[in-house]
Amino acid sequence: MIFYDCSTAPNPRRARMFIAEKGLKIETREVSIAKNEQLADAFLAVNPRATIPVLVTDEGAVLTENLGIAAYLEARFPEPPLLGRTPDEKGQVLMWNAIVEQQGGIPIAEVLRNTHPAFKDRAIPGPTNHPQISELAERGRTRLTDFFTLLEARLQASRFVAGDMFSLADISTFVFVDFARVIKTRIPEGNSATLAWFQSVQSRPSASL
Amino acid sequence: MIFYDCSTAPNPRRARMFIAEKGLKIETREVSIAKNEQLADAFLAVNPRATIPVLVTDEGAVLTENLGIAAYLEARFPEPPLLGRTPDEKGQVLMWNAIVEQQGGIPIAEVLRNTHPAFKDRAIPGPTNHPQISELAERGRTRLTDFFTLLEARLQASRFVAGDMFSLADISTFVFVDFARVIKTRIPEGNSATLAWFQSVQSRPSASL
Repeated sequence: MIFYDCSTAPNPRRARMFIAEKGLKIETREVSIAKNEQLADAFLAVNPRATIPVLVTDEGAVLTENLGIAAYLEARFPEPPLLGRTPDEKGQVLMWNAIVEQQGGIPIAEVLRNTHPAFKDRAIPGPTNHPQISELAERGRTRLTDFFTLLEARLQASRFVAGDMFSLADISTFVFVDFARVIKTRIPEGNSATLAWFQSVQSRPSASL
Repeated sequence: MIFYDCSTAPNPRRARMFIAEKGLKIETREVSIAKNEQLADAFLAVNPRATIPVLVTDEGAVLTENLGIAAYLEARFPEPPLLGRTPDEKGQVLMWNAIVEQQGGIPIAEVLRNTHPAFKDRAIPGPTNHPQISELAERGRTRLTDFFTLLEARLQASRFVAGDMFSLADISTFVFVDFARVIKTRIPEGNSATLAWFQSVQSRPSASL
């Protein structure tokens, strides 16, 4: 297998962390978004949609999107389970993963990509350019406040994001919350359950890769 | 189990179609978005995030988000498989489902919710109001053009969206493409593979519910 990674971006980090939690060693190639390598012919030949992460399987299939990579690896390497064991757990993991993507990951990306000069005309990943929309950045900030409230309520009631087991939903949430530093946003001080959960995930070896 | 549905909205239709493809009969309660019933106390007691669809399982778990509901039902009722059989198929299904959500479903929702008077201050589903952003609607139209090009290229190469088997990715894509009528957008006339695929999915009994 070959894993196409980018050390500076949150979505490849989610896949990198998933791979590490599975205990897998996969040949890795770095694609620098800072150097626009994701838009160069060499990478477009791998993924014409110009997104990272990508996993090329031993059978030669090209998998993009965190969920595509996670579903493949979970089926091939079931232990330790990161997408849930029982029907209920499997439902909770993909439900919470979707919630944190929509309500955490997307707002953070919207703030960054619609304000930072490095993303001028690059408001959406992919081969097509899109101009920045400043109202979208403002809306992202508002939504992010709601997200931290939702996350604190969830973690007051549950040890991990999707229940009592560590899962893909924790990986996604951890990476998004950590990445919020780029828009100068940290976990609000009073959010004690979120702070404790963040510290526990941060202490896992997969978090330091 | 109890399924909370809304007959006019695309996301509940995806879950409704998934349930029908599994051959399941689940007690269903209609929640009218036109009447704002998703924001009424009775429904917020079920799902405080105010989104539909919701599946309450026999064990009393509350599952929201199409992927949460699909993962649970696939694990409890494996036949016929709608999330893939092999590791490769499982990866392809969740990968394509994510691609069509981001590049088809979201742009269509952005156009509708940021232009239609019925969605004034309701640009995002959920309990918090957000104003419409007209630039986002324009961007959605541009992205939707790219989406139909991507979908045609995929269906020229593949019988179904995620490979040679019908899956969740077809359900999502079919519902989004059909829903695009609300923003007066149809499959472009020359897109023969997409038109043939659409007709074949439309002829399934699950598509008429």
